[in-house]
Amino acid sequence: MAEQTEKRIRIGILGASGYTGAELVRLLIRHPNADVVLLTADSHAGKPYEEVFPHLAGLGLPGLVRIDEVEWAGIEVDAVFCGLPHGTTQEIVAGLLHQTHHSVLDEVLRESDGDAAAAIHGTPRVIDLSADFRLDSTETYAEWYGHEHYAPDLQPEAVYGLTEFARERLTTARLVACPGCYPTVAILPLAPLLSQGCILPDDIIVDAKSGVTGAGRAAKQANLFGEVSDGIHAYGVGHHRHGPEMEQELSKAAGQPLVLNFTPHLMPMNRGILATSYVRLADGRSVDDLRDCLRERYRDEPFVRLVPDGIAPATRHVRGSNYCLIGLFEDRLPGRAIVVSVIDNLVKGASGQAVQNMNVMFGLDEVTGLEQEPLFP
Amino acid sequence: MAEQTEKRIRIGILGASGYTGAELVRLLIRHPNADVVLLTADSHAGKPYEEVFPHLAGLGLPGLVRIDEVEWAGIEVDAVFCGLPHGTTQEIVAGLLHQTHHSVLDEVLRESDGDAAAAIHGTPRVIDLSADFRLDSTETYAEWYGHEHYAPDLQPEAVYGLTEFARERLTTARLVACPGCYPTVAILPLAPLLSQGCILPDDIIVDAKSGVTGAGRAAKQANLFGEVSDGIHAYGVGHHRHGPEMEQELSKAAGQPLVLNFTPHLMPMNRGILATSYVRLADGRSVDDLRDCLRERYRDEPFVRLVPDGIAPATRHVRGSNYCLIGLFEDRLPGRAIVVSVIDNLVKGASGQAVQNMNVMFGLDEVTGLEQEPLFP
Amino acid sequence: MAEQTEKRIRIGILGASGYTGAELVRLLIRHPNADVVLLTADSHAGKPYEEVFPHLAGLGLPGLVRIDEVEWAGIEVDAVFCGLPHGTTQEIVAGLLHQTHHSVLDEVLRESDGDAAAAIHGTPRVIDLSADFRLDSTETYAEWYGHEHYAPDLQPEAVYGLTEFARERLTTARLVACPGCYPTVAILPLAPLLSQGCILPDDIIVDAKSGVTGAGRAAKQANLFGEVSDGIHAYGVGHHRHGPEMEQELSKAAGQPLVLNFTPHLMPMNRGILATSYVRLADGRSVDDLRDCLRERYRDEPFVRLVPDGIAPATRHVRGSNYCLIGLFEDRLPGRAIVVSVIDNLVKGASGQAVQNMNVMFGLDEVTGLEQEPLFP
Amino acid sequence: MAEQTEKRIRIGILGASGYTGAELVRLLIRHPNADVVLLTADSHAGKPYEEVFPHLAGLGLPGLVRIDEVEWAGIEVDAVFCGLPHGTTQEIVAGLLHQTHHSVLDEVLRESDGDAAAAIHGTPRVIDLSADFRLDSTETYAEWYGHEHYAPDLQPEAVYGLTEFARERLTTARLVACPGCYPTVAILPLAPLLSQGCILPDDIIVDAKSGVTGAGRAAKQANLFGEVSDGIHAYGVGHHRHGPEMEQELSKAAGQPLVLNFTPHLMPMNRGILATSYVRLADGRSVDDLRDCLRERYRDEPFVRLVPDGIAPATRHVRGSNYCLIGLFEDRLPGRAIVVSVIDNLVKGASGQAVQNMNVMFGLDEVTGLEQEPLFP
Repeated sequence: MAEQTEKRIRIGILGASGYTGAELVRLLIRHPNADVVLLTADSHAGKPYEEVFPHLAGLGLPGLVRIDEVEWAGIEVDAVFCGLPHGTTQEIVAGLLHQTHHSVLDEVLRESDGDAAAAIHGTPRVIDLSADFRLDSTETYAEWYGHEHYAPDLQPEAVYGLTEFARERLTTARLVACPGCYPTVAILPLAPLLSQGCILPDDIIVDAKSGVTGAGRAAKQANLFGEVSDGIHAYGVGHHRHGPEMEQELSKAAGQPLVLNFTPHLMPMNRGILATSYVRLADGRSVDDLRDCLRERYRDEPFVRLVPDGIAPATRHVRGSNYCLIGLFEDRLPGRAIVVSVIDNLVKGASGQAVQNMNVMFGLDEVTGLEQEPLFP
Repeated sequence: MAEQTEKRIRIGILGASGYTGAELVRLLIRHPNADVVLLTADSHAGKPYEEVFPHLAGLGLPGLVRIDEVEWAGIEVDAVFCGLPHGTTQEIVAGLLHQTHHSVLDEVLRESDGDAAAAIHGTPRVIDLSADFRLDSTETYAEWYGHEHYAPDLQPEAVYGLTEFARERLTTARLVACPGCYPTVAILPLAPLLSQGCILPDDIIVDAKSGVTGAGRAAKQANLFGEVSDGIHAYGVGHHRHGPEMEQELSKAAGQPLVLNFTPHLMPMNRGILATSYVRLADGRSVDDLRDCLRERYRDEPFVRLVPDGIAPATRHVRGSNYCLIGLFEDRLPGRAIVVSVIDNLVKGASGQAVQNMNVMFGLDEVTGLEQEPLFP
Repeated sequence: MAEQTEKRIRIGILGASGYTGAELVRLLIRHPNADVVLLTADSHAGKPYEEVFPHLAGLGLPGLVRIDEVEWAGIEVDAVFCGLPHGTTQEIVAGLLHQTHHSVLDEVLRESDGDAAAAIHGTPRVIDLSADFRLDSTETYAEWYGHEHYAPDLQPEAVYGLTEFARERLTTARLVACPGCYPTVAILPLAPLLSQGCILPDDIIVDAKSGVTGAGRAAKQANLFGEVSDGIHAYGVGHHRHGPEMEQELSKAAGQPLVLNFTPHLMPMNRGILATSYVRLADGRSVDDLRDCLRERYRDEPFVRLVPDGIAPATRHVRGSNYCLIGLFEDRLPGRAIVVSVIDNLVKGASGQAVQNMNVMFGLDEVTGLEQEPLFP
Repeated sequence: MAEQTEKRIRIGILGASGYTGAELVRLLIRHPNADVVLLTADSHAGKPYEEVFPHLAGLGLPGLVRIDEVEWAGIEVDAVFCGLPHGTTQEIVAGLLHQTHHSVLDEVLRESDGDAAAAIHGTPRVIDLSADFRLDSTETYAEWYGHEHYAPDLQPEAVYGLTEFARERLTTARLVACPGCYPTVAILPLAPLLSQGCILPDDIIVDAKSGVTGAGRAAKQANLFGEVSDGIHAYGVGHHRHGPEMEQELSKAAGQPLVLNFTPHLMPMNRGILATSYVRLADGRSVDDLRDCLRERYRDEPFVRLVPDGIAPATRHVRGSNYCLIGLFEDRLPGRAIVVSVIDNLVKGASGQAVQNMNVMFGLDEVTGLEQEPLFP
């Protein structure tokens, strides 16, 4: 413990003026190994951070600077968190990582024997919260994001950072693509069920309900209080960008390509996503089998938990925490089951999982800095 | 018009201290043909109505009385709305309707030639908002509501009052069972699709999201602000009482018995239900066919409306109104479609539909008293 | 009644894409004497209205046009409601009203004997919802709004349209400046108390709490759901523009210039303002005297109502309605009293009061089109 | 640090099924020196804690027991937190503390040299979150709480635990009365201003706006989502029980008896209180003087902070944290000022301050276990 506390990770957060940026700061400022040394935000450059986020005042944070004014040569940063608009990250990351010759870094990492932090100075490791490196196929990326991929040579080495499924690769990763919030809440329960053959891959419906912070802090009419409060609506039906991401990862779990239904809804809450997934049981499987499968898979996971039988997980029971709760239910339709899962979209669905990934990447205890119970009510 | 205004319907509301009771008063107090003459509420008996609902002050309403202290012989009531706990309505209605010999009333109604209001004095016509007479089978009722049916002889004559499907029978009905809020929002889009053979009856999933007023005004911890706000959870998964009601009516539409998945969620809004229904297309049918089917069915309906292509209906766009909005979407899963429908649970899902039924029963223009646009935001 | 229904008022709404615009449409579409014939909105010009406000679909409304493309010569409009940004109204109104020679119009109005509607064709009467003509002094206007007044010659004839205090002048007014939402809720209870000498003019504190719709529908970060929900803050402390407006009108009531404390707060609700006013009793006056004063003043008013002793008015009890509720309370501080008043900021605080003014201006029953009970919950 | 971590405090929480109980558990479970060994809750006795508060699952907490079934002789508890209904605490505490002879305990404490924890086994120290011991005068208590005081002999030794003003007495206190939420947010800014003669004691108005959790978790109609959301109302005007508590403490600060206006409002948020206090400046004092006074007083306080000039504190900027933020503003009324202060009612207004007191009582660093940044949004 004493030794571990002494390991210091110097952190840069690019795009720190959004909600995920603030959530990173909230978590990292109390992280015993992290020092936040760089905060960028183009629109607010020149301001103290607490002017943008008054709830994070008095913490001695660095002021906001423009990303193109960062003198990378002059500062030592071990890890860079990116919360930039899509496309931008690809350009920034290409610039950052191409400075160092890959093979050299790889060698260093191989030799570093788990203590990567010390070795990597000079080239920060990148933990990206955008969608820029989530899709393996740069063609699929181009199709869904409307522009060609700007760093296709880096895509192959990007690690899809759903921590519970990526630990080994994370240890030496230079570039981690943190999953989207919707994919996180859907894949955690569904991937084991598919890989264990408990459910069929061709009949999965994910009906998801999200809080508003998932839409970010940019001023948009659609996210005004008057437009969101006291109501609900579906959006992006059939064409939300998190659909192909889920399909990619669940195809891997299923061992075959799959397509699914993903229907997101926007509802009047700040934090949280609840996914109600409707699945078809494989021959001879029961809901109890599904429960056993997930219990077995997540028995030793610190952040994924099955709720007791008959209990329905609620988003408010994970608010502010890195937990994912999962419940399983019989369906009145024979041969089917219902899977309900919840996360806080800003924590396990974004910044918390990013910190969890950082912990793994730098050889720390995975729960470090994330040991907070949910805030209820 | 002048003539119609002169037709007066004397109204009693039994169980007027709940949200549906107040909503009935709100609508009926401005209804040009209605006079509210009786309001009962056991727990608040003796109080002026505006002490229980201050937003309905200054309207000259009758004070609240205990239901067992109503002297039915002494007052003339043409229509009774029942908003009582389940089971209670059966007993009350049995008492009310057994006073008059059925065949006599039937004769009167047959002769009344549409102008039933004048003829029916002496035996009020009953418009029930509870679940007491919704299920055709008293055995199914007993199974789901936990006690035997107390008025099995009356059940056969109860008309299931989803107005758009019940007009003919409503004209002469003595006893109308207004649909539950969830069944209303699900059946309106799904029934025509089933009866026209557009979708398959054995693979219907209704994922519904409801505001809190559907749970009533009784003091329950689960409905406290702190327990409901800023979050969402599923409840009654697989065993909500509105499930068999949907199945009953959709079975009729399909022309064969069907079972479905109905999964309700409670979310932080006052009014509104959104149902996202996942359906399987019948052979050779497309989403466009579904759209045509519903457009055709609801072309002349005043309260049911298809939204334009690509638009997702929002509960806030029906708040306070009797409208049901329906949207249709392609599914990424081949051979499937997504149906989204919304209502205000207190209006089209309860009190508004009850008034709509009353209008039909008493030969009035069906929209009378319901011509309010939604309140947004 | 029959005759009155036949009187038609052709309505134009300039700046119809904001919340007050939509609220005007909601009220006027059901108004028996109003025909909405013109809707302008620069940013949405060319769109059908229901694309901007889907809750107002299917009403046969005219499409949105740019204000500078309106051919005034070609359309007949009797009343123009202006919901434009400040400054703009002054320019538009100057253009509109200068077309006609004032003295001629005045003569017509004088001769019209209450039936002004018929006479005024050619020059619409203007009902302004902006702040452009509320302040008598164009210097005060310039000081608080940051630019010179663009129609100083018209300012003197503008009628400050707090209906309950302006009826006589409204009858012949060409130009009505509807009060701000905060001034409405504060002046209604305080003006009679001042004019009757019940309270002292030099020690008035108005602590006001407003819903978010008062800030309009423009995309601003400060009004995002995430920034407003589940919290409260004061804003514009000591320098909100509604302060001088209150001072102007309350000075008139007091018969002497006064300054007051006005402290607004933004809170997570859509509609409603609650003002808690802390006042000092005049010598020999008691809270009972204040209550008598207000009861006497508002005895015959349709929209202003004292709540019973000991009851605290709630914004949710006026939601969607044109009512103002007032409650009075003893203060533990000797010689002081507490006045609580509530309105719906979009109705009595904006569009409802504008319609109320229109009714008076055109000789209609003042409550026409406004007879809706509040929507609760 | 290493030494300090080893100090263990065994904790009992009496009345653990309310929101303050759950908040205590949330804070103490991560407190490095605390072990929660006893949880009582009469209505839920026999249940695992996570059945009552699912967000606190998986923490190895003791199950809930009835308070009258606790065998005090058999368990060692160093600190007891009481979250019981008023009156009850007096009886329980009398039972607990009378077991040990006062003088003996006092001697032990005197000798314990700051390391009270070790010495006190056998008689737990009591940290009460109810109102039972807040009022110095048992007569005032009886007047406001409707029953005689049940432990009048203990009242004199109770320490009013507004931590920032009570540290010295807390060190040896056996019985701490934690302040009410409203008094906390009002006294923190006002007490220094009074004791330094910056403001006058006879003209203080505290207009407070509270979230709903302050009303507890009991099932009451008034706190249902439908009754609270999307609205605001004042309550307890002139007779809220926190009024005399504020007056007691501010009288001490002023050095003379004072009476004040305290007007609470209930608003739709879970956590947070904002107090807008209207004060009269003492002769020759300015708002800058007030700011200097508070800055000086709170310069070294970890949890009380002045916001920058011109910024208005928001409740959402303290959500989930133990901070109190204070802002000062000029008043348009000459000779007056406006003081705005915010806390999270469940943290600094209840459980957080209770833990802060425990830290002081047991010689720990005062911020231990409370070092969380606010959760925003």
